[in-house]
Amino acid sequence: MINVGIIGATGYAGAELVRLLIGHPEAKIVAMSSVTYEGKKLSEVFPNFEGITDELLTDMDTVVEKSQVVFASLPHGLSEPIARKCYDKGALFIDLGADFRLHDEADYQKWYKLDYKDPELHEKAVYSLCELCRDKIKEAKIIGNPGCYPTSISLGLYPLLKAGVVRTNSVIIDSKSGVTGAGRGLTLGTHYPECNEAISAYKVASHRHTPEIEQMLSEIAGEKVTITFVPHLLPVNRGILSTIYVDLTKDISAEEIRKLYTDAYANEKFVRVLPEGTFANIRNVRCSNYCDISIHPDPRTGRVIITSAIDNMVKGAAGQAIQNMNIVLGFAEDCGLNMVPNIF
Amino acid sequence: MINVGIIGATGYAGAELVRLLIGHPEAKIVAMSSVTYEGKKLSEVFPNFEGITDELLTDMDTVVEKSQVVFASLPHGLSEPIARKCYDKGALFIDLGADFRLHDEADYQKWYKLDYKDPELHEKAVYSLCELCRDKIKEAKIIGNPGCYPTSISLGLYPLLKAGVVRTNSVIIDSKSGVTGAGRGLTLGTHYPECNEAISAYKVASHRHTPEIEQMLSEIAGEKVTITFVPHLLPVNRGILSTIYVDLTKDISAEEIRKLYTDAYANEKFVRVLPEGTFANIRNVRCSNYCDISIHPDPRTGRVIITSAIDNMVKGAAGQAIQNMNIVLGFAEDCGLNMVPNIF
Amino acid sequence: MINVGIIGATGYAGAELVRLLIGHPEAKIVAMSSVTYEGKKLSEVFPNFEGITDELLTDMDTVVEKSQVVFASLPHGLSEPIARKCYDKGALFIDLGADFRLHDEADYQKWYKLDYKDPELHEKAVYSLCELCRDKIKEAKIIGNPGCYPTSISLGLYPLLKAGVVRTNSVIIDSKSGVTGAGRGLTLGTHYPECNEAISAYKVASHRHTPEIEQMLSEIAGEKVTITFVPHLLPVNRGILSTIYVDLTKDISAEEIRKLYTDAYANEKFVRVLPEGTFANIRNVRCSNYCDISIHPDPRTGRVIITSAIDNMVKGAAGQAIQNMNIVLGFAEDCGLNMVPNIF
Amino acid sequence: MINVGIIGATGYAGAELVRLLIGHPEAKIVAMSSVTYEGKKLSEVFPNFEGITDELLTDMDTVVEKSQVVFASLPHGLSEPIARKCYDKGALFIDLGADFRLHDEADYQKWYKLDYKDPELHEKAVYSLCELCRDKIKEAKIIGNPGCYPTSISLGLYPLLKAGVVRTNSVIIDSKSGVTGAGRGLTLGTHYPECNEAISAYKVASHRHTPEIEQMLSEIAGEKVTITFVPHLLPVNRGILSTIYVDLTKDISAEEIRKLYTDAYANEKFVRVLPEGTFANIRNVRCSNYCDISIHPDPRTGRVIITSAIDNMVKGAAGQAIQNMNIVLGFAEDCGLNMVPNIF
Repeated sequence: MINVGIIGATGYAGAELVRLLIGHPEAKIVAMSSVTYEGKKLSEVFPNFEGITDELLTDMDTVVEKSQVVFASLPHGLSEPIARKCYDKGALFIDLGADFRLHDEADYQKWYKLDYKDPELHEKAVYSLCELCRDKIKEAKIIGNPGCYPTSISLGLYPLLKAGVVRTNSVIIDSKSGVTGAGRGLTLGTHYPECNEAISAYKVASHRHTPEIEQMLSEIAGEKVTITFVPHLLPVNRGILSTIYVDLTKDISAEEIRKLYTDAYANEKFVRVLPEGTFANIRNVRCSNYCDISIHPDPRTGRVIITSAIDNMVKGAAGQAIQNMNIVLGFAEDCGLNMVPNIF
Repeated sequence: MINVGIIGATGYAGAELVRLLIGHPEAKIVAMSSVTYEGKKLSEVFPNFEGITDELLTDMDTVVEKSQVVFASLPHGLSEPIARKCYDKGALFIDLGADFRLHDEADYQKWYKLDYKDPELHEKAVYSLCELCRDKIKEAKIIGNPGCYPTSISLGLYPLLKAGVVRTNSVIIDSKSGVTGAGRGLTLGTHYPECNEAISAYKVASHRHTPEIEQMLSEIAGEKVTITFVPHLLPVNRGILSTIYVDLTKDISAEEIRKLYTDAYANEKFVRVLPEGTFANIRNVRCSNYCDISIHPDPRTGRVIITSAIDNMVKGAAGQAIQNMNIVLGFAEDCGLNMVPNIF
Repeated sequence: MINVGIIGATGYAGAELVRLLIGHPEAKIVAMSSVTYEGKKLSEVFPNFEGITDELLTDMDTVVEKSQVVFASLPHGLSEPIARKCYDKGALFIDLGADFRLHDEADYQKWYKLDYKDPELHEKAVYSLCELCRDKIKEAKIIGNPGCYPTSISLGLYPLLKAGVVRTNSVIIDSKSGVTGAGRGLTLGTHYPECNEAISAYKVASHRHTPEIEQMLSEIAGEKVTITFVPHLLPVNRGILSTIYVDLTKDISAEEIRKLYTDAYANEKFVRVLPEGTFANIRNVRCSNYCDISIHPDPRTGRVIITSAIDNMVKGAAGQAIQNMNIVLGFAEDCGLNMVPNIF
Repeated sequence: MINVGIIGATGYAGAELVRLLIGHPEAKIVAMSSVTYEGKKLSEVFPNFEGITDELLTDMDTVVEKSQVVFASLPHGLSEPIARKCYDKGALFIDLGADFRLHDEADYQKWYKLDYKDPELHEKAVYSLCELCRDKIKEAKIIGNPGCYPTSISLGLYPLLKAGVVRTNSVIIDSKSGVTGAGRGLTLGTHYPECNEAISAYKVASHRHTPEIEQMLSEIAGEKVTITFVPHLLPVNRGILSTIYVDLTKDISAEEIRKLYTDAYANEKFVRVLPEGTFANIRNVRCSNYCDISIHPDPRTGRVIITSAIDNMVKGAAGQAIQNMNIVLGFAEDCGLNMVPNIF
């Protein structure tokens, strides 16, 4: 059994990590920290854990000290010193925040308005969207776990981009996210009567996940991909649906497009290419690590529309972080992640 | 007072017509019909009307006979004979269904798989999205009331298309509709546990509103506009949000774009061009006849993103039908339509 | 036209007052205040008002100064000085808060932990649940507008209590309230992912509306009524459903019970005694001033169950406040309150 | 590994059985039947199973033939012949329907309007709410799995009734159920726009679970218990909250009451007596087999209020059925049931 610790256990992603790791057969949670609730039981903050875990919430240093694997789910700008401590002691550090996702510090400065304080650390960090990056992380000690939007989008576009059939400046992505994506911090926009029975776009063409998405897509395509990305806040708890519009560079049949997807994901347990005539829906992946993808050619315009659904808290955060741990530690990649989605 | 009648009063659009017309100071409901519930009181079907209207539901012919204005909210293919009767007796017929929306019978045949049985009638019919078509309907006797998606989209694109700055084959529209848009007929997809906490696209690039949208947009642009249109089913009762993506044909500043909108809608009570930095949201127009539009240039890609929000049951159906009646009959255009949106 | 002002216009009840008063044919809003948003436009806080009211939010004194009728929607403990100013200048003051609801200062001290600072004022104040108290307020200058729970419960029990057939220590009330009832202040319990797909009781047998309910019920019964009252937070925006359980003191038939209700409310526009076999539902009264009541005898136990539904923001707050104004000023009681509920 | 089969796999309880049994380490699903969807893959009906189970849906006889344990989730009146076949072949039959819940055929006739066709079978059947009946089922071959409401209510009342401190004709139960409780059959009442943003009671004091609840409570109390039971339909997918009101027969302190509960459930993994000052909430038990109970004395009236929350699909149906199987077959009682509730 591996000793794992969670920093930021009382945010949504942190609490989801705890929930999933409790069921992981190879991992044992040895410490959890929370700045706000230090000294309390996790079940006082999230009563679903009543009688399941009575561990007291502690501080970050204690987590680092006790753990062989440290997961951190923190606002951006706070992960570096923890990563450094983990690195120095030889623990695996998996960051669910944004600090180790971008290769280029200039992007980080531009979108997050911060500098790297420990640049050397970032050279050691590996960004890992598991299905697309697993070969790079076998030896990794610091992992940048992808954002929720980038996960749904990169998996949705990978086969087409890889095949080189996408006009790379044509990609438009309209994403819809459940409210847990906004975190547990109180805001008017997430106050129940303000977001129930509502929908709007937000941070139109200016969301911080944009450079991360473009970085991953460009890497796949082997050339610069520029996107228009518009997220929307959806009145559901969990889930992201990304509707992706692309122009093709060549005439390619619906069957050929489908084959690109089924071939690309033939051996991927967690990516399901849906049968023709069906539509990816967040309910079909709820509480699971799956990414569902449906493919819709539009012969009238020569475009292809892809819809991609994940659970933002699982494949979009905690589940993928565990999947990354499994890869690095040599466990079965689906170890502890065999949840069947609860469709209702 | 004008005598008005409603055919199909027990569907959602029909019931909304009743609700709004009860408050209309110049109209008096004299008859309502329902095939399924004939002989019952409307309040037995929709208990909100308890004590408000005790009128028994009757048949179509009775409605036509008693009314000076007939509103019909029926599945496609059923409006022609009623329109004929109204026309012959000199009553104004306003069709909330699809039968009088398309100019070209070929489009109707292709998308609705039906022929016109009374083609002459269609020559007399006028499609009227009020803000864009009001000049054409002063003498009209048969009005094709627009669909909900086309209303939100056409109003959202009008100023840009009119100005000739849109690449007309670049228009991509991602719409999200509340469940009332699917009607009151029972289906698995609208069974509560199947659409609550869910979202998916449906009829991707193949929705029947597509030719109606292209017809209106092409008319505005003065050239053929081809769109990609993808609707989504949203877990809310009411509202449509359309997120519209366009490429521009020329370099035009954010201010100039905004001016196109504020100029175009300067005198339109029901179209609100939202302040910079805010986002159209279905909750802000709920139960009202407003269309809210927000404008979002994307300088990184040279695109503009427009989001447009309406209440699908009001501006997208019953409210606009009443607005059309007001125009034809010479009432104030907002007569009976001064509802302030209930934001919560 | 009467000049009216709203203090606390940016809370939910205050904003609902604005929404309803805009449509009131005899009232004109001359001033609105907000401590938090003073100096802003109301539409910056609630964008549904965009283009409808451009009035800047001001301070309390300005509201009092300009208005013939002042509505206040404030946390308890803040209304006295405003009431005093209104009283001294001869304006009608209608308090939607709790400060003028309880007859006995001891109750106020016990449940609200505050003393009266201006006790004389309270002697002049009249509590008015319109249907039950309208005769007392003709000359009133200070009105305590009832709480939402007390309104639904008192109307639900009035006919039975009045008839003297209720065992007065047997009354159990299980109420379910929409989230707007908790106000616009941010709390974890009203953060979307925490109250969506959830239900629990809260303040079990200890809610502050308890003494107000007992006061009204005792007054009706002519003897002390002691209740068990348990509120629940319901994942909807609007509405209160109260399910009320009573033991009867005598054998009385279902028909006789029904007759007590239909007689008591025969002339009450806003109270609808529902047909046998139907059930009060918050959706049927949404956005309206109605109170729907359904009656369910339980012959197996000798109990009667009453369910009573209101819109907490209208009949439970802003609507009833306007109804009270109408009564005092001699307008038709339903003036400005003829909204047909929007059932979907 | 035990071979298990599911009859009625495409209803909600059936599909939940499949979902849970897939993760059961000692059971292997060998057959699933559906009258409506026979010959299709389960994933065509519930796409969450895509790529997880490709088994074709078959008929009932095949399920019985292949299985050592047969779970049936059918409308009442259909279980007897299947139970007979299982019994004759020596398979364990666990009925999630109502046919083997009532001891007295007269109750079944009165509430379900049907006779027993195979009365001998009912003598062999054992009703088993696991925590209260596990000792009786060790040798059972036919198990009547409890209804969802009875489970939440019986667990909520057991300690008080067992202690003999409840006035047995005073019990009032106000339950709120998620929409999955109404099943997957299409009805207007479960059409999204009709039950979203809504709440009402239904089958007031006449729900079919009433005799089952009274049977269990009377058995615990050792005397006839008569209840008033009022269910409500709640706009959430899953969960039942029962708010239970009882009069006490003797003066007993809050601490003593709490001790009755903590003692009664000290060794029960799936029943959590919540800390003082907290409230049972369906979100805290979602997708788990827990029953959460909170205790609220009302000193003003001498009553006690208990709130009890379960997931209607798990502890109220499929989870408890598996728990019953575990008991009979000698597996650990929580085998396959260690799901941590997903609170958001």
